Amino acid sequence: MELKPSPFAPEDLPDMGPLDGFRLGVASTGVKYQGRNDVLVVSMAEGTSVAGVFTKSKCPSAPVDWCKRHLAGGAARALVVNASNANAFTGSEGEKTVLATAQAAASVAGAQPSEIFLASTGVIGEPLDPAPITATFDALFDDGKTDASWLEAAQAIMTTDTFVKVATASVDIDGVEVTLYGIAKGSGMIAPDMATMLGFVFTDAPIGPEVLQKLLSEHVETSFNAITVDSDTSTSDTLMVFASGTAKDRGCPEILRKSDTRVALFSQALSALLTDLAKSVVKDGEGVSKFISISVSGAANDAAAKRVAMSIANSPLVKTAVAGEDANWGRVVMAVGKAGEAADRDRLAIWFGPMRLAANGQRDPDYSESAASEYMKNDEIDIRVELGVGDGLATVWTCDLTHGYITINGDYRS
Amino acid sequence: MELKPSPFAPEDLPDMGPLDGFRLGVASTGVKYQGRNDVLVVSMAEGTSVAGVFTKSKCPSAPVDWCKRHLAGGAARALVVNASNANAFTGSEGEKTVLATAQAAASVAGAQPSEIFLASTGVIGEPLDPAPITATFDALFDDGKTDASWLEAAQAIMTTDTFVKVATASVDIDGVEVTLYGIAKGSGMIAPDMATMLGFVFTDAPIGPEVLQKLLSEHVETSFNAITVDSDTSTSDTLMVFASGTAKDRGCPEILRKSDTRVALFSQALSALLTDLAKSVVKDGEGVSKFISISVSGAANDAAAKRVAMSIANSPLVKTAVAGEDANWGRVVMAVGKAGEAADRDRLAIWFGPMRLAANGQRDPDYSESAASEYMKNDEIDIRVELGVGDGLATVWTCDLTHGYITINGDYRS
Repeated sequence: MELKPSPFAPEDLPDMGPLDGFRLGVASTGVKYQGRNDVLVVSMAEGTSVAGVFTKSKCPSAPVDWCKRHLAGGAARALVVNASNANAFTGSEGEKTVLATAQAAASVAGAQPSEIFLASTGVIGEPLDPAPITATFDALFDDGKTDASWLEAAQAIMTTDTFVKVATASVDIDGVEVTLYGIAKGSGMIAPDMATMLGFVFTDAPIGPEVLQKLLSEHVETSFNAITVDSDTSTSDTLMVFASGTAKDRGCPEILRKSDTRVALFSQALSALLTDLAKSVVKDGEGVSKFISISVSGAANDAAAKRVAMSIANSPLVKTAVAGEDANWGRVVMAVGKAGEAADRDRLAIWFGPMRLAANGQRDPDYSESAASEYMKNDEIDIRVELGVGDGLATVWTCDLTHGYITINGDYRS
Repeated sequence: MELKPSPFAPEDLPDMGPLDGFRLGVASTGVKYQGRNDVLVVSMAEGTSVAGVFTKSKCPSAPVDWCKRHLAGGAARALVVNASNANAFTGSEGEKTVLATAQAAASVAGAQPSEIFLASTGVIGEPLDPAPITATFDALFDDGKTDASWLEAAQAIMTTDTFVKVATASVDIDGVEVTLYGIAKGSGMIAPDMATMLGFVFTDAPIGPEVLQKLLSEHVETSFNAITVDSDTSTSDTLMVFASGTAKDRGCPEILRKSDTRVALFSQALSALLTDLAKSVVKDGEGVSKFISISVSGAANDAAAKRVAMSIANSPLVKTAVAGEDANWGRVVMAVGKAGEAADRDRLAIWFGPMRLAANGQRDPDYSESAASEYMKNDEIDIRVELGVGDGLATVWTCDLTHGYITINGDYRS
């Protein structure tokens, strides 16, 4: 099946030169895909910190279980990602595959298996043979001979993505510039038989694993946990940050406590980068024709605001209305109502872009059907809802629901 | 827009003669629809008991608010339903419309406004003028001159339904046969701009309102609350039961307590009728091509089983897979995982029809792709999941997600 490229594919990609402390290798196993790479190895300097957040699925993949178990060590020497098989719901065989892969990588890298982090994306329930992957390690870990670019790295982890997803940021810490690079993949929570949203951030900043984990856990809520394509949660969703700390050699002070005042700028940059990456996943959502931002204010608290925003973002009726360029604010009322959070019907107000369509429990007196319809022709649609009961705020992002989504996920035989 | 009839439209409708204690009137207001009736009035004998369950939306329609408020009285003399405007999110004007309608009906019927129950289905957010509706009352309440059939009654409340939804049952209570008739409408939780699932059951059994309410609240969980088309909840969902009690005149004893041993048979019949009606709503789900039954066993408790079953039933990826006749059990694993309920990955088993596809945390050793694919060609698909952690059970019903759904809800400008 040929996938139609997303209309939101970026025209330019950021410049991403080598990043201190990280070396990239990509290879093709030939197992499923022909003519493209499907293995990524990122080798990391000794002393690299790691943090991660993972799917909340009760049936997580074997690599997710592995990463969660070894995160406590806080130290990473390599990341190995394979595309085409998720190694999910593969039972004890899946665990053996994970162990064999980590052991093989550790052996070549001169590290402990617990310092090897793994992610797999692809079909669920099919046994994953580690041999074709580990066979690439001698070449990929062989310092200097196999260096790949960050663009090639991002391409090697794609499955049904229609464009490559990267983002960059830089921060000045006490006069030393540190760099953050992010790569991600994902276009539905599960693309056709291809599980998983994966995101990886790499930085040369010298930040300890505890601080890194706190920042990641905080910012994931307003970035990757604030997007939805189809409300489905993969067995394999993985978001990790690796900090090589090599900027120390250029005089950058180590940041080991969250209370360190130098955390703030890095935290901002990480947050912005994660939000960029997350939005790029939605912009490649399966069948996307419109990008939708949904902001909710006036909720009882921020968590309530987010639940209402997600109720709107996940409503098939709201998403199909946007696809049809229909300013159907009645469906937004419906989605607010079903969220189960406190809302005051008689204070509820709804805006589409600059236009208030509803207020005080009824249609806005100045409502103009033609102006609202004109607005809906835009590629990016902003929906804003004021609930009128408190100070809670949230913004989430989603895409519309189109024939393209059905075609990708339904007109298909595995 | 011409709607394609559901492939599940019944070939035969049950025989529904007059039902003691109820008189039906239908009329056309001409406000939105041409050439069809859009008002239904059901006049009821004095002493009619009423019970009801309503949408849990935090933004319910004005008629829902009205019915909830007056349910406590337990007595009904009329039901008035209009199709085409939901009188939802219409502010204080909407409340005035409800009051004017109930007062006009009460006046003609010689009843109290609190004994008039109302339901509206259609567009959200547009003011509903009561005058065209109340103008029909003189004729519709005029005893004997305007009797409509139950089929006409069911047709008058349809919006985007592609077939009429009725069900019947009868029970012997101490040698006296009592009858139950049900009518319903609904094809999405919200059809294009047409809010609402409505269901009404009528019986001549002499059952007090407290007993009726207990039975309805119990059985709604395994019938109307066990179906989903698109996970969206209308502002107006209404399910009511009216018991005229006229079977007393034929010697049927009154049932006023739930502990009455004669309740059991009636309860069974009511449950079966509600389940029939609920399934008929799914079978007319927007764009339906397959009817899907999802049974979950081995959950921590029944409520957990239902949440897992609903997670599967609401998964766009499961629903598109069924539409594409793809035995994609990996998506069922995903939906089980995201439900958030206890599940033991290594004991999880999944059946599609008679075939076990997965067991013990991995693909079934006897899995046959071709046999599974053959099964998926059926019109009715049974998915069964065993979670392996407890005794909780639940069954829910849904339909697949097709291009038809997108066309109905998206290829559309209001």
